[in-house]
Amino acid sequence: MKIHNFSAGPCILPQVVFDKMAEACINFNNSGTSILEISHRRKDAVEVIDTARALVKELMNVPESHDVIFMQGGASLQFPIIASNLLKEGGKAAYMQTGKWAENAIKEAKRFGEIDVIASSKDKNYTYIPKDYTIPTDADYFHCTSNNTIFGTQMKQFPNSPVPMVCDMSSDILSRKVDVSKFGVIYAGAQKNMGPAGSTMAIVQRDLLGKTGRNIPDYLNYATHIKNESSFNTWPVIAIYGVMLNLQWLKEQGGVDAIAKINTEKANTMYTEIDRNGLFTGTANVEDRSQMNATFVLNNEELKAEFEALLKQAGVDSLTGHRDVGGYRASMYNALPLESVQVLVEVMKQLEQKFG
Amino acid sequence: MKIHNFSAGPCILPQVVFDKMAEACINFNNSGTSILEISHRRKDAVEVIDTARALVKELMNVPESHDVIFMQGGASLQFPIIASNLLKEGGKAAYMQTGKWAENAIKEAKRFGEIDVIASSKDKNYTYIPKDYTIPTDADYFHCTSNNTIFGTQMKQFPNSPVPMVCDMSSDILSRKVDVSKFGVIYAGAQKNMGPAGSTMAIVQRDLLGKTGRNIPDYLNYATHIKNESSFNTWPVIAIYGVMLNLQWLKEQGGVDAIAKINTEKANTMYTEIDRNGLFTGTANVEDRSQMNATFVLNNEELKAEFEALLKQAGVDSLTGHRDVGGYRASMYNALPLESVQVLVEVMKQLEQKFG
Repeated sequence: MKIHNFSAGPCILPQVVFDKMAEACINFNNSGTSILEISHRRKDAVEVIDTARALVKELMNVPESHDVIFMQGGASLQFPIIASNLLKEGGKAAYMQTGKWAENAIKEAKRFGEIDVIASSKDKNYTYIPKDYTIPTDADYFHCTSNNTIFGTQMKQFPNSPVPMVCDMSSDILSRKVDVSKFGVIYAGAQKNMGPAGSTMAIVQRDLLGKTGRNIPDYLNYATHIKNESSFNTWPVIAIYGVMLNLQWLKEQGGVDAIAKINTEKANTMYTEIDRNGLFTGTANVEDRSQMNATFVLNNEELKAEFEALLKQAGVDSLTGHRDVGGYRASMYNALPLESVQVLVEVMKQLEQKFG
Repeated sequence: MKIHNFSAGPCILPQVVFDKMAEACINFNNSGTSILEISHRRKDAVEVIDTARALVKELMNVPESHDVIFMQGGASLQFPIIASNLLKEGGKAAYMQTGKWAENAIKEAKRFGEIDVIASSKDKNYTYIPKDYTIPTDADYFHCTSNNTIFGTQMKQFPNSPVPMVCDMSSDILSRKVDVSKFGVIYAGAQKNMGPAGSTMAIVQRDLLGKTGRNIPDYLNYATHIKNESSFNTWPVIAIYGVMLNLQWLKEQGGVDAIAKINTEKANTMYTEIDRNGLFTGTANVEDRSQMNATFVLNNEELKAEFEALLKQAGVDSLTGHRDVGGYRASMYNALPLESVQVLVEVMKQLEQKFG
């Protein structure tokens, strides 16, 4: 049975990525060696990470002022890295609080200095994106989270920040066009639209670095990774190979603009059904709804077993909502085909026909 | 042609690891989903990391006082983590300096406090392991590097340290029996004897934590990973799956004692030829020679092209020494069969027959 994988991350990737990674586990580039046993400094390995970085630059139209680097540790490690690299000793930073991951980013940054939470949607369990806020001009940077997987909200536009803007794009990077030049730093755990779990990407404006007066450990210093072209130490070879393959696939699809159109179509299909079908209610504020993660609940909890049996029968997998929100979450990352959304919508219609 | 992979790391792993990882890229545990697209919190994923941790405990006979955790970032990230977690504000730590990686560990620790380099073999380009040193009783911990890949030296025994002993075992973990109870922390980048590149393992004595008075970012705090059983954030699923498979393989070989015997046989075969063959000279002090990495040079540089042509013809790969030492380095990690060492020895004999 075909499985429709709505996992919130790690998540579905294109079949060609799975196939080529499987092949490379046995025989990488017809070299007679597995990708799992080669030095990260071997020529054909270096080509992998160089190609991945070049593809990020191309697909996201990264300006010359910015470098693309691959690290490890996920957004959770980026939180203290951001503060170490950009928050001056005795300085302050402005944060927008739009969900659990923004909370974590704030918690970690507070270890390094004064954090001004200039906007928060915590009052309504993060069901919306704050709009009225002013970024203080004396902040060292402004930090926001572009998409909130748990709550199903997404920033539709970014402010014109008077200070360097830093954005955690872990869950919607490469899903839509973004003007990278507006940002000081963009970072993302790879395990949604970038590739498999195991690497973290950052796009860093070079001239922002080296100004905090802090004594930063080498691994936590963006400058280290820029200088060493992401090969400061052993990088996760197979994970980055997956990133490269996934970016090649995205390029073949027509790039970010082309995938954004499909993402919009998938999201429209999904939200149209949530709004039309009387058995369901969307949980996020309509204008802030995420194109990546649609969150919704069953109005009548008694239909839960029936709905989930139908989902299982249709091959719809990993639709359970995060425990902080409950209900359901349809994650529709780049590699999820429109067909999978249509199958889910069909199941919702079936439930309505039986119980609506 | 069969390739004999002497890479210093990432390095050869058992063929069964390659085969099973390839299979899991397509269909993990017959679930119909790729291991690359599943949540790290899915039941069968959690079983992977739990099994990997349990196997480390079993194979290394880890006492109840210690926890096994998986992180990311390699030894380079462990360097500041060690100091953050164990070096008190205003305290000092003792380090032994036996190579480039020890140098890096010292450099990073110095950011956090007073570092006393109590022994160093830098005077002779790290060709030996210091023996006469005293670990100060007022140090917060003593740090050493068990095996030095670049220079081909290895600590044959560990001191009875009066303070917690911390050891970077990146390049010889699981290659021989070690009494874990003697150590406060053991850590290792996975990419030699643990598994593919992309994860880092630490074995941490719980009761040493929480005493430095430092405000440690969550990701850099061992306590975070212990509390969350290595699932604080998204872990590198396929890399840990590779670790699990590799540890299963090791257990099937008879465990650490059994592999240690084979490692000794491989090393003896290698060093016997280096010492016997008049064309070559070993670069490390004889009594400190590493069982993992044998370093040697050609006495007559004019035979270089001929030797390397013969190596290539025999399928011997990645034998080039590190640029800091030159010459050759035969890395003989757990998964390298004795046969590969015999092939290399045969090539050395052939060269002798032609030019000896």
